[in-house]
Amino acid sequence: MPEPTRRAPSGAAALRADKTVAIAEAVLDELAEQGYGRLSMEAVAKRAGVGKSALYRRWPSKQHMIIAVVSELSVERLEAPDTGSLRGDVLALLRSVADWLTHPRFSRIFPDLIAEAHRDPALAEALARSVGEPRRARAVVVLDRAVGRGELPPDTDRETALDLLAALVYWHVSVRGVRPDADYLERTTETVLCALGARPAA
Amino acid sequence: MPEPTRRAPSGAAALRADKTVAIAEAVLDELAEQGYGRLSMEAVAKRAGVGKSALYRRWPSKQHMIIAVVSELSVERLEAPDTGSLRGDVLALLRSVADWLTHPRFSRIFPDLIAEAHRDPALAEALARSVGEPRRARAVVVLDRAVGRGELPPDTDRETALDLLAALVYWHVSVRGVRPDADYLERTTETVLCALGARPAA
Repeated sequence: MPEPTRRAPSGAAALRADKTVAIAEAVLDELAEQGYGRLSMEAVAKRAGVGKSALYRRWPSKQHMIIAVVSELSVERLEAPDTGSLRGDVLALLRSVADWLTHPRFSRIFPDLIAEAHRDPALAEALARSVGEPRRARAVVVLDRAVGRGELPPDTDRETALDLLAALVYWHVSVRGVRPDADYLERTTETVLCALGARPAA
Repeated sequence: MPEPTRRAPSGAAALRADKTVAIAEAVLDELAEQGYGRLSMEAVAKRAGVGKSALYRRWPSKQHMIIAVVSELSVERLEAPDTGSLRGDVLALLRSVADWLTHPRFSRIFPDLIAEAHRDPALAEALARSVGEPRRARAVVVLDRAVGRGELPPDTDRETALDLLAALVYWHVSVRGVRPDADYLERTTETVLCALGARPAA
């Protein structure tokens, strides 16, 4: 039985989780207020109540830090929905996209990162690898299950289908800035199902 | 018959068109390089080879100037396509969206304006009024003609249809940063037609 008073292991592994959480919150606050270009390591450290060395012990650069925090928010807590029908899964995916894009801070952060990515190819690549691809990998599971149930044709174009599952909500909410009304997600689910040529399960 | 040597009328109307063009080019260059937040009237004037007063004679503020130039680029030269079929018109509209979003400078400018609009409600409102709404008004003509030809149901949801005509290309090209392959626009046209429940003309 471990001794309750023993000391934490020393060295690289001994990063305090509470500090990591405080830093992540500070990164999101600074990103929402200042944007990627103006965010400084100093301001994040000050806001989190830690020294700058606490940041550099965790991540080698500002870009690594931001990508890690944004990826955690965007990907880590997600699972592919499995409601038993394509309609239910599409509705759940669209709701998760809408929740993500209307998250109080993230609604400002994501469009700013996209704008910055047009000026910074390394950031664009990191965003695609750490946010875009994991989210797409999750959604493709839904499409594959629907093909298995006979709700989608086996030759369904996965690329177009994955674009559909994010594009409409992004354009509506993040580009046009429209607050979705009560049945927006239901209507958009119907549009996506029509576009995919979905049919009821066999 | 007017005398060829008479002087231009004096006063507010006497804005030289060549200067206006040079200023618009300078605004686009500065927007692409610096972004909305860092763009200064001084830098635009210097780049265009005019005095700052030449800017303020045309527009009362930086925001008015930028909206006027971006609206001119985004709206003024566009007409609703009229190819005789919904398929042809949708393909033409998607191509015009792709051309707009991949325009060498505008591909950087538009995502930056969207990010800035999340921090500046007045800019968001001006963009919607001067860019979004005129573009949507142009596209709705295409939908109405297709309803008239029996290619779309009369109760077609115009809001969703208009979102579809921009959202997929925006997500693919501007958010994901994918360069469209040769038949991307053709495939996306099929997706849009499926989503709209289009049928051949009666």
